[in-house]
Amino acid sequence: MTRAQLFDNIKKKSSYLCIGLDTDLSRIPKHLLKSDDPLFEFNKQIIDATHNYCVAYKPNIAFYEALGPTGWISLEKTLNYIPHDIFTIADAKRGDIGNTSALYAKAFFEQLKFDSVTVAPYMGEDSVKPFFYKDKWVILLAHTSNPGSSDFQLIESVVTGRKLYEEVIVKSMKWASPDQLMYVVGATQAEKMESIRALAPEHFFLVPGVGAQGGDLQMVSKYGMNKQCGLLVNAARSIIYASDDTDFAQRAAAEALKVKDEMEACLNSL
Amino acid sequence: MTRAQLFDNIKKKSSYLCIGLDTDLSRIPKHLLKSDDPLFEFNKQIIDATHNYCVAYKPNIAFYEALGPTGWISLEKTLNYIPHDIFTIADAKRGDIGNTSALYAKAFFEQLKFDSVTVAPYMGEDSVKPFFYKDKWVILLAHTSNPGSSDFQLIESVVTGRKLYEEVIVKSMKWASPDQLMYVVGATQAEKMESIRALAPEHFFLVPGVGAQGGDLQMVSKYGMNKQCGLLVNAARSIIYASDDTDFAQRAAAEALKVKDEMEACLNSL
Repeated sequence: MTRAQLFDNIKKKSSYLCIGLDTDLSRIPKHLLKSDDPLFEFNKQIIDATHNYCVAYKPNIAFYEALGPTGWISLEKTLNYIPHDIFTIADAKRGDIGNTSALYAKAFFEQLKFDSVTVAPYMGEDSVKPFFYKDKWVILLAHTSNPGSSDFQLIESVVTGRKLYEEVIVKSMKWASPDQLMYVVGATQAEKMESIRALAPEHFFLVPGVGAQGGDLQMVSKYGMNKQCGLLVNAARSIIYASDDTDFAQRAAAEALKVKDEMEACLNSL
Repeated sequence: MTRAQLFDNIKKKSSYLCIGLDTDLSRIPKHLLKSDDPLFEFNKQIIDATHNYCVAYKPNIAFYEALGPTGWISLEKTLNYIPHDIFTIADAKRGDIGNTSALYAKAFFEQLKFDSVTVAPYMGEDSVKPFFYKDKWVILLAHTSNPGSSDFQLIESVVTGRKLYEEVIVKSMKWASPDQLMYVVGATQAEKMESIRALAPEHFFLVPGVGAQGGDLQMVSKYGMNKQCGLLVNAARSIIYASDDTDFAQRAAAEALKVKDEMEACLNSL
């Protein structure tokens, strides 16, 4: 999917919501456990109920990998079920030496046909470059939303005066254009959003941490938006686990719609 | 496996060789492609031929993941086939927010029964801690051996004067003891081995880059060894792809024996 197509979808749906498919057998409604493939059955009903309110789905790969080969099959079925106009993100946080990253890219882009994959920057340029495919995207970790993000991401370089996450952004901007590269920017650091947007005015940011992790959509949107929206805001647990009963899909739709309505107001001020 | 058991195996076998199972369908001997599970068949014959000369096997997870569910099954069969006294490393370079890392830990330690997993430090403490299981190991990326390792790992902190990879070591040493934590230290930076050993005198280092990536076993051993050996030196392509014909296992054994003999000499100088 191209950047223009993504922005078109955002305008069409008045939403920049990404729904995280962090699908956990121990949290899905009990009645689904009887089905042949509970993970896929849950995802299918969530997708049916929410796809009008979001522009992206982000399966968290660990939740599938933890189940071995059957989890992988549920993931494949989920990918095939997602409507083609919706952007798909493999939240995998991969990154390894070149020939190994190339195989991860193959797994997510060729086997599973994801539009994008999240990548960890620690190993540098040659670990990231194999993920640049035509019309596919790298979503590089810059500033994450978890407590440990301050352990290393805030280290300030003696040479440039920039923090590690800023170095990641500045260096990686030379590796690919904003048509192939996005950044993960944690919402719990919304006060930093403005300075990160100044560093990378054109790029899309994937913003986790709104919802269960406790962010603030209006603040994120105010400081993070650019003229092509430039934001995909992820919510997972607050939507997909809105209910653990037979009404889970209906309740997920209601939660997604609520976020979408808030986003529509933010988009109107663009 | 405990640190004492690992050191006992090293003494018994006079070897600290780790063999990387970077098993690639496009590189294994053509006659194996007829078998039901070529990846497993290749690994089985490599393990049969080399297990007396090494103390660890390190499947590179990307090579299995790239094949989808069937690759996962080949990996599971390989793990079950490796003799129990040999240390197993899931070279996965995972690392995510806490509840996600916990699921990766479950995949590698509970589903697949690996002894250890390689973890990327970028997201900090809460992304690493879920991997600390009793008698299991985290092998944390510190200084890797690829060209891109200099992009971020060498950034020097304005506060501590330490480089990022040194910060990773110093901080993470507080998260677990040397009985649960090792570091990835690239052999192509052997001149740095001495200073890294000074930072972490007790820890085991997993050293990639000897062999196809071009390191130097004697230099690594001279500067990297501690009193309990403290090294696992990985070689993959130079051993497992020593021949692409029907003699591949025999040739792999000969290459592994050659490395083991060199290691025996280094161990004798302990």
